[in-house]
Amino acid sequence: MATQTKPILHGYFRSSCSWRVRIAFALKGVEYDQLPVNLIKDGGQQLTEEYKALNPMQQVPAVEIDGTTLSQSLAVIQYIDETRPGPRLLPADPKTRAQVRMISDLIASGIQPLQNLYVIQKIGAEKMQWSQHFIDRGFQALEPILKQTAGKYCVGDEISMADICLVPQVYNAERFKVDVGKYPTIKRLNEALLEIEAFQVSHPSRQPDTPDDLRA
Amino acid sequence: MATQTKPILHGYFRSSCSWRVRIAFALKGVEYDQLPVNLIKDGGQQLTEEYKALNPMQQVPAVEIDGTTLSQSLAVIQYIDETRPGPRLLPADPKTRAQVRMISDLIASGIQPLQNLYVIQKIGAEKMQWSQHFIDRGFQALEPILKQTAGKYCVGDEISMADICLVPQVYNAERFKVDVGKYPTIKRLNEALLEIEAFQVSHPSRQPDTPDDLRA
Repeated sequence: MATQTKPILHGYFRSSCSWRVRIAFALKGVEYDQLPVNLIKDGGQQLTEEYKALNPMQQVPAVEIDGTTLSQSLAVIQYIDETRPGPRLLPADPKTRAQVRMISDLIASGIQPLQNLYVIQKIGAEKMQWSQHFIDRGFQALEPILKQTAGKYCVGDEISMADICLVPQVYNAERFKVDVGKYPTIKRLNEALLEIEAFQVSHPSRQPDTPDDLRA
Repeated sequence: MATQTKPILHGYFRSSCSWRVRIAFALKGVEYDQLPVNLIKDGGQQLTEEYKALNPMQQVPAVEIDGTTLSQSLAVIQYIDETRPGPRLLPADPKTRAQVRMISDLIASGIQPLQNLYVIQKIGAEKMQWSQHFIDRGFQALEPILKQTAGKYCVGDEISMADICLVPQVYNAERFKVDVGKYPTIKRLNEALLEIEAFQVSHPSRQPDTPDDLRA
């Protein structure tokens, strides 16, 4: 039966959207296989015809699951949440769930797309300043929202999809030398979340395709 | 009671993300009030402290609903869907729902953010070529996906959030002079959807803040 086959994640160790999906699998306790797609090597393995058939956007992640192939990390995460047992990644209450989606989308539509590889490749030499600008802009909005919604985690005291989006975005921010210390709520939540095993085992420094010099 | 107060949409006639929310309200038959936020006038009314309190991202839309304020159009649409009667905007089957979210996110995270006002303002003189490039890139991926999922509408024969995202994105494509004729499935779906009343009454050419010269 298709549902007894392990899902396959086509991802890249350092892709923040791939990391989101790895966290979701880990939180749900779902075993999966990884097929790394090196976004840099050979001019970008995501650009091959073979990969394009899996995800026409030529981005990671793409996930083969239950006989279908899905892309777009938040769609994948919500599918995993709706079809697998384990802790809820979206809360039951509609208003709280809307807050989780609002924070997730602020990151997934409002911040991350502007540091996507195919975007900063087009920006060229100024990609560092460009990325810093849009991460700072996003974090300036995210900080007051999280101040209102957060408990132990982004929305109240339960881990949710919002947390799954936050941690990889902070990792990106650090890569682009954004001073995360300016955002005390974001900083506190990120530190709390990085204590959790699901966020650790899924970390870019611990994946099958992590280069030796970046391995934890 | 809060749920008996009409929702208030803070939006802009030409904003594709505002249009998404207007379509959702119309499909659900929910009455709402509009408070226009002119993104151009006075240097951008979304930049005022007053508006920033509603949406720290300083973008439209923001929606006051059931005693809370939500931003991020897909979070708003799913909240409306989960709390209001009327036709489902997300299908009941998890796999079909995942397809709807995948298509919605491809547009909402993969295409639209790159033509957002605050992004193309930073791009400057080359904003037309920039926008065309990323819309074409997105539509080249969307076309084969829709070829597989579409029936009468984006996913099968029921209208969904994917359709709510598609039509405003095609409108944006036309504004940026993208030749939508290159994408026959996108073109066909857009034409079919524009026949539907909810897509017509919510159209940018028919809003309270539509300038006279753009009014239908």
